[in-house]
Amino acid sequence: MQDTHISLAHGNGGRFMRELIEELFARHLNNPLLSTDVDAATVPWTGAGEMVVTTDGFTVQPLEFPGGDIGSLAVHGTVNDLAVSGAIPRYLTLNAFIEEGLEVALLERVVISMARAAREAGVQIVAGDTKVLRRGEGGGVYFATTGIGVRNSAVRLGMSAIQAGDRLLVSGPVGDHGTAVMLAREQFGLRGDLQSDATSVLPIAQALLSVPGLRFMRDPTRGGLATVANEICRATHLGVHLDGPAVPVRDPVRSVCEMLGYDPLYLACEGRVLAVVDAAHAAAALAAMQELPHCDQAAIIGTLRVGRAQVVLETELGGQRLLDELEDDPLPRIC
Amino acid sequence: MQDTHISLAHGNGGRFMRELIEELFARHLNNPLLSTDVDAATVPWTGAGEMVVTTDGFTVQPLEFPGGDIGSLAVHGTVNDLAVSGAIPRYLTLNAFIEEGLEVALLERVVISMARAAREAGVQIVAGDTKVLRRGEGGGVYFATTGIGVRNSAVRLGMSAIQAGDRLLVSGPVGDHGTAVMLAREQFGLRGDLQSDATSVLPIAQALLSVPGLRFMRDPTRGGLATVANEICRATHLGVHLDGPAVPVRDPVRSVCEMLGYDPLYLACEGRVLAVVDAAHAAAALAAMQELPHCDQAAIIGTLRVGRAQVVLETELGGQRLLDELEDDPLPRIC
Repeated sequence: MQDTHISLAHGNGGRFMRELIEELFARHLNNPLLSTDVDAATVPWTGAGEMVVTTDGFTVQPLEFPGGDIGSLAVHGTVNDLAVSGAIPRYLTLNAFIEEGLEVALLERVVISMARAAREAGVQIVAGDTKVLRRGEGGGVYFATTGIGVRNSAVRLGMSAIQAGDRLLVSGPVGDHGTAVMLAREQFGLRGDLQSDATSVLPIAQALLSVPGLRFMRDPTRGGLATVANEICRATHLGVHLDGPAVPVRDPVRSVCEMLGYDPLYLACEGRVLAVVDAAHAAAALAAMQELPHCDQAAIIGTLRVGRAQVVLETELGGQRLLDELEDDPLPRIC
Repeated sequence: MQDTHISLAHGNGGRFMRELIEELFARHLNNPLLSTDVDAATVPWTGAGEMVVTTDGFTVQPLEFPGGDIGSLAVHGTVNDLAVSGAIPRYLTLNAFIEEGLEVALLERVVISMARAAREAGVQIVAGDTKVLRRGEGGGVYFATTGIGVRNSAVRLGMSAIQAGDRLLVSGPVGDHGTAVMLAREQFGLRGDLQSDATSVLPIAQALLSVPGLRFMRDPTRGGLATVANEICRATHLGVHLDGPAVPVRDPVRSVCEMLGYDPLYLACEGRVLAVVDAAHAAAALAAMQELPHCDQAAIIGTLRVGRAQVVLETELGGQRLLDELEDDPLPRIC
């Protein structure tokens, strides 16, 4: 396509739209299952294992940030939801809502990044749709992705499997993604070398699945570690006791959060796994993670206890702080 | 939830978001496979038949129009893409991008309408995600839906099966949806009793599948009949000759289009099927459709011919008019 910016004509079902789809989306996302001639893709399915389905919307601002962009994030976010459910991601579908006026070169970078993330995670984008929104009616581009994965039928994970005494583990430092995106907005006049942690957690999830005693996994995105911990409390009626000093937080993340009044425990990660493991196997689960890239700071960070169903942070000085469910909006459009 | 309008806090991963999801989306879309406690749904799959996947975005304005709304449209649009591929729709996923300030009562009507459309089409919404956009960054609400269906492995449909001499059929009048949405915008100062044709075409598609000689089906949405005809030309290198007087167009649609300078052949339908059938079986295919509700005006409207790969409309007076591929945007945000 020759245009440098998206216009409404790229969304009207005619030639411009066909060129946008063929020369930008289909060219970069190319795989044997993706066809621009059909409205529905036929995909192989062996019948072995359970089918797992997830979906996610992405509205992050800015569209590109240190460590990622909305394209790779859309792939990683959906791949990760499947991975922490114990599944192997197989297929993705992609919806793009593109705002009139978006620079085509930016859109192309984002789609190339999405294609790379999909290749690395071993998923194929099998169907897509584009809509163009009038200037002012969209934030550059929004993506929605749906993922289909396959899971060994023997895998049984879920909050309902969690028991008192279980340990809570995290695969790496928390809050990197939230902090990196916040800084990338520049509105704070701050610039760090902080990068988003956005990546596929499939290797971590698969390593944890090989350890006995795994009860539950989740990637702590919107609302962060504290929000997932609160969900666990609500579902299990157990208390989550977090060992404050054990929770890994990078120094620059801590500094930025202190300066700006954010709590890293509520900020999004996009490449971490939170796992609940039988106490007897927690050390083995930690060891399994620590062998993987980006997981050298993995840690056992808490315990599930009978008692009030609330999240308690035990601080370095022996104090306790309740981590309530989030009500207001610390950081919109983070994913 | 007690709020009357959507706020940014409904998108932050905390309590307000949980209430929005549980008390509005999950309550109305309720089915045994949909859970608010997991990020990925496990869905049954028998392994018999082929898996077919499709996805679509919806940005129609206004959100409610005579004959439908963005909720039912999102279900019908995705169900129909599966149906015309020869599949039975089984599962849907739903992404909602909701603009700050949207009236909760309107959102609830749309979600109830979506639930009804899903029930009627026999599909279950198995996974969902919501994002809230700042005021001015969204058009009330955008939806993205992905559909998963199952198709008898013996079904072989596609543009590649089309041959010279084949006949083109349509299941009912064209342009109703486009015209109804246009009038609902009121910007023309016109009001008609025109309704969108939006509905599930699954019964029509299944009836056509029972007829021998079926080559290809498509629902002519964005860009209408003329756009699908152009796609057929490009894929087959055959000419599509349309019998102008045979193409069913309702009188009020024709009147409104004449008045406003639109061509109904380029306007979206959301409940029609365009089918290409072996000439020997065209009458049987027509008869199969005419037995169904809303299909009393089904017609054989054209022929595939060797020659220039273009769409030729043969007019009542014996003239010919070329129906080019659309370049500009007659009617944005129609679906």
